Amino acid sequence: MNREYDTIIIGGGPAGLTAGLYTSRARLNTLLIEMALIGGQMTSAIWVENYPGFPEGISGMDLSELMHKQAAEYGVKTVFAEASGIELPDGKKIVKTSEGDFTAKTVIIANGSRRAKLGVFGEDELTGKGVSYCAISDAESFKGLPVAIIGGGNSAIAEALHTAKFASKVTVIHRRKQLRATPILQEKAFAEPKIDFLWDTVVEAIEGADTVEHLKLNNLKTAGKSTLKVAGAIISIGLKPSTERLSEFLELDTNGHIITNNKMETKIPGIFAVGDIRHNSARQIVSAAGDGATAATHVRNFLTH
Amino acid sequence: MNREYDTIIIGGGPAGLTAGLYTSRARLNTLLIEMALIGGQMTSAIWVENYPGFPEGISGMDLSELMHKQAAEYGVKTVFAEASGIELPDGKKIVKTSEGDFTAKTVIIANGSRRAKLGVFGEDELTGKGVSYCAISDAESFKGLPVAIIGGGNSAIAEALHTAKFASKVTVIHRRKQLRATPILQEKAFAEPKIDFLWDTVVEAIEGADTVEHLKLNNLKTAGKSTLKVAGAIISIGLKPSTERLSEFLELDTNGHIITNNKMETKIPGIFAVGDIRHNSARQIVSAAGDGATAATHVRNFLTH
Repeated sequence: MNREYDTIIIGGGPAGLTAGLYTSRARLNTLLIEMALIGGQMTSAIWVENYPGFPEGISGMDLSELMHKQAAEYGVKTVFAEASGIELPDGKKIVKTSEGDFTAKTVIIANGSRRAKLGVFGEDELTGKGVSYCAISDAESFKGLPVAIIGGGNSAIAEALHTAKFASKVTVIHRRKQLRATPILQEKAFAEPKIDFLWDTVVEAIEGADTVEHLKLNNLKTAGKSTLKVAGAIISIGLKPSTERLSEFLELDTNGHIITNNKMETKIPGIFAVGDIRHNSARQIVSAAGDGATAATHVRNFLTH
Repeated sequence: MNREYDTIIIGGGPAGLTAGLYTSRARLNTLLIEMALIGGQMTSAIWVENYPGFPEGISGMDLSELMHKQAAEYGVKTVFAEASGIELPDGKKIVKTSEGDFTAKTVIIANGSRRAKLGVFGEDELTGKGVSYCAISDAESFKGLPVAIIGGGNSAIAEALHTAKFASKVTVIHRRKQLRATPILQEKAFAEPKIDFLWDTVVEAIEGADTVEHLKLNNLKTAGKSTLKVAGAIISIGLKPSTERLSEFLELDTNGHIITNNKMETKIPGIFAVGDIRHNSARQIVSAAGDGATAATHVRNFLTH
């Protein structure tokens, strides 16, 4: 396997795949490093209605496959590995990974975000045993059973709607008194008889002997405690940028997102950051893809000037 | 026709259509004002290979139609009119158009760019008589005839390749000694026997009695003058932002692009700018679409805070 590239892209979501499409069309020798699943968080989107060009919508998994096919067609190579850091000896960029070191003239950091944890008692112990961070994978396993969705944003509500197809009942638990999700999703959820809402409520513990049995809840307005019997708890309270191991040289905002200018340049020449991991990203598939195209344009300028 | 909206989007290219898709999904009453053709410059792209999600490529016209259908599905209204200015009486935004005034709480400026002119003798007189700014419309009319393409970027080279299907010969006239187009397009053009190149050369005049007959050329390196016999001159030397009539209150860069922060906010609260018209835009379909999604997110924040 070749170990030297013009550009290494860390992360195979929409931002990374689009960056790769553009750099490979520019005939830059491009390596895409993906840790898990091509498509990233996009793969967990059950049905994408807001990616322009697909008026009927498309599953996140199918869109991932189309984007990957397109990038690969122009020559992007993909390696499945975990990037553990970047080193910068004499103007070079070395990306350390679980599959060894790769060297490049430019690096595009596109490793996005992952689901945030609640951080409550029982969460880690019962993950995979009723606690889930991905309705698209797990909703069907709750057939005929009561399930809680924790969160109030677009993902949470889309996942509540999906889960309602299988579960006997879905309870959306949200710490505020109104949803953050875009109104069209709210309307659909309010119209679904299987979905109930618990407002101003937080989960304090997830309990169960071998699998999830109930949640301990706290109403923030009344301070009233209660218990909710469920077989599943799907946690969808937002995303955390995956910057931990790549942040050494980079400027981060208070939430851990990488600060760039509007050319997607970080403060290190030749290192770019795109998509969810970037400060002030709108965290949409199309905005991440747009970032990828923008960064690739400036990668080309960086390499030719 | 309703005259008051939550959001008015000026311009129906990929940036405006995506902004409209997002604002209408957010149940904001949205008006899209388009002057000519839904899709904007995108409609003149013969074949789009770099919009992620379409590995086989798609025509710019078809992609425009898909994006418009999708935005309209969620409720975006479209009016065909020319926007002539924005007025700001007591916190309102009034958009003046050829179809009357429309009022909104927020405005997204997305009216993109148009082809730059050469500014040489004969250009205006012979426009439509052999001088063209759009190969997709006009290439077929040059069947069996020699044609010049002036420019060296992606659009120029894509248009040279398209024109070569019809013309007897295509001469690409470029003022530099190498193309700006992405390498994959360069390779295709160099491999096409019907395409020749004149480097370091500028057009000084376009001449002809009723239609284009020849170009007066000047070699910038040798200062040697020459004449090239052609029936058509397709001018593709770049884009100019369409800011003239909307720039009164806004901050522009030296090329006339609107300056925004990375939320797409201009210096006027509630007025956003997206796509080609924005300073430092990568001027790609997907980056324009990404801008639209980003602006729409912040429109929603602006209206709810």
